[in-house]
Amino acid sequence: MRRLIEETLAAGFLDDGREGIGLAAMDDGAALRVRDGWLVVTTDSHVVHPIFFPGGDIGRLAVAGTVNDLAMMGGTEILGLTSAVVIEEGFRQDDLERIQCSMQETCREAGATIVAGDTKVMGRGELDGIIINTTGLALAEAVVSDAGLSPGDRIIVTGPIGDHGIALMAVRRGFGLDGDLRSDVAPINGLIRRALDGADGGITAMKDPTRGGLASALAEMAQKSGVSIVIEEAAVPVSPVVRSAAEILGLDPFHIANEGKAVLGVRAEAADGVLEALRSHPQGEGSAVIGTCAEEHPGRLILDTGLGRRLITEPEGEPLPRIC
Amino acid sequence: MRRLIEETLAAGFLDDGREGIGLAAMDDGAALRVRDGWLVVTTDSHVVHPIFFPGGDIGRLAVAGTVNDLAMMGGTEILGLTSAVVIEEGFRQDDLERIQCSMQETCREAGATIVAGDTKVMGRGELDGIIINTTGLALAEAVVSDAGLSPGDRIIVTGPIGDHGIALMAVRRGFGLDGDLRSDVAPINGLIRRALDGADGGITAMKDPTRGGLASALAEMAQKSGVSIVIEEAAVPVSPVVRSAAEILGLDPFHIANEGKAVLGVRAEAADGVLEALRSHPQGEGSAVIGTCAEEHPGRLILDTGLGRRLITEPEGEPLPRIC
Repeated sequence: MRRLIEETLAAGFLDDGREGIGLAAMDDGAALRVRDGWLVVTTDSHVVHPIFFPGGDIGRLAVAGTVNDLAMMGGTEILGLTSAVVIEEGFRQDDLERIQCSMQETCREAGATIVAGDTKVMGRGELDGIIINTTGLALAEAVVSDAGLSPGDRIIVTGPIGDHGIALMAVRRGFGLDGDLRSDVAPINGLIRRALDGADGGITAMKDPTRGGLASALAEMAQKSGVSIVIEEAAVPVSPVVRSAAEILGLDPFHIANEGKAVLGVRAEAADGVLEALRSHPQGEGSAVIGTCAEEHPGRLILDTGLGRRLITEPEGEPLPRIC
Repeated sequence: MRRLIEETLAAGFLDDGREGIGLAAMDDGAALRVRDGWLVVTTDSHVVHPIFFPGGDIGRLAVAGTVNDLAMMGGTEILGLTSAVVIEEGFRQDDLERIQCSMQETCREAGATIVAGDTKVMGRGELDGIIINTTGLALAEAVVSDAGLSPGDRIIVTGPIGDHGIALMAVRRGFGLDGDLRSDVAPINGLIRRALDGADGGITAMKDPTRGGLASALAEMAQKSGVSIVIEEAAVPVSPVVRSAAEILGLDPFHIANEGKAVLGVRAEAADGVLEALRSHPQGEGSAVIGTCAEEHPGRLILDTGLGRRLITEPEGEPLPRIC
């Protein structure tokens, strides 16, 4: 997938010589110079299946996913979202209304609004259900990339991992654990704003561990930043119910998608302050320092199990299609 | 479709109390205040079928469609586009490359670039081919809406109508007229820039007559502006080949989609100047004044055939699905 994007879809747009973060950076979005500030832009098409799942639905996912991608670049004050919906002919009107209400509610939580939209209909058999594309815009004073890590930086995750992917997988496999398995899907721009406000520039990189999970997000940050990241396994928060369900499903929580969490790189001297700021917010109570960046083995992601160290590699192929 | 959008999809976002043009205006996009200027935003998902057609393809359509929606609101200097692609598993790599090249070429014509992207894959049987969502951003000094017509304003169309829809329809029905039937799909922000530059504020409204054709665009402008529009049938440019093909297909060129044309409302005293400016541009050589706005019968679209006058009504349902 990454090769397809880099070699085919993004080819020809990779170097436009402009200031800012463009397609070449393969970040969560772009940052464009507008007057004396930055305009942060991000786009995502949402194809999640099933469209309603414990803890959320495709509408909440679309709004939160886009808001969070903006927040990861420092764009926590949302200027607006666009929403382009493609539906299968005969799609249930009440499902559409339920999704629309959910988008509205999630926008309210994020302090965002939908400013422009588009609707298309495809025939039966041409599309399975609904696709929602959301594109987001935010203004930022300073931009945070996912490539800014330096040796010595601490890695913080804002809460337990794996909830979204496991919740979806459990529904698809037809088992629930008494409603304890719920997606964490939520807009976290308020949480990130609080962390940025208290950090005084000490936050060096951010990314949300969505498709591919924590391991994929950290690996990308390490590769782009040219550092290694050593993760202490015991420090990574995973809820007991996710841990059990992952065992049953034969999945590793490190590779499971999240939709309401962030990974932050923080200068060592700022780590305590950022952790405190995050924990003071309801969405960040479970925040933890889980690792440290190092100079040797640049680009590598290393797991310290307490008994020894091993490399974390990305699994081949997409582990969970239509997860977002 | 319009009711579905207004009552379900846009409900709850229609009045956010902000300055500018938002979702409530149901314009081609939104205009947001950013510092002392306007940020124009528009989004469209493209589901055109077939994906390659005489004169263009889904990639060219996506870029041009979005660029033109921005231009229609006065945003002729493109800040950037996002491109979110959803493909069916097994979609041909060479088709994807061809589409990507076409997007790149069309961006070059428009002076635009793609700044952020997303790629999703759906299973076989879950999606027929490919969907491309493009969202566009432009800065504008002044915003032009589609609701600014006043009685006495002249209506200008920038060239012959019906080319895109007829070209697609001919391919689908399996007949060609020796390659003369070609879509007009093209970015026309340069043409619109030229018109705006010479008009000194005399352009009161703009819209591109895409889905639903000239009649639908004019009807919407008349309704939103609270004027009637009287169209002189003989003045509306239609190429001979489109006229013949439309007759064969039993279609009315007034209701057929265009992808490289614009309709402008212009103050009477500015009409000659704008027409001259448009005709001086290669894309506007076929421009013509086709009608006038009046006070009586607000919201109505009236056809003057030379022999008499009759109301133009919008056809029921969507005449051509997957036209864009």
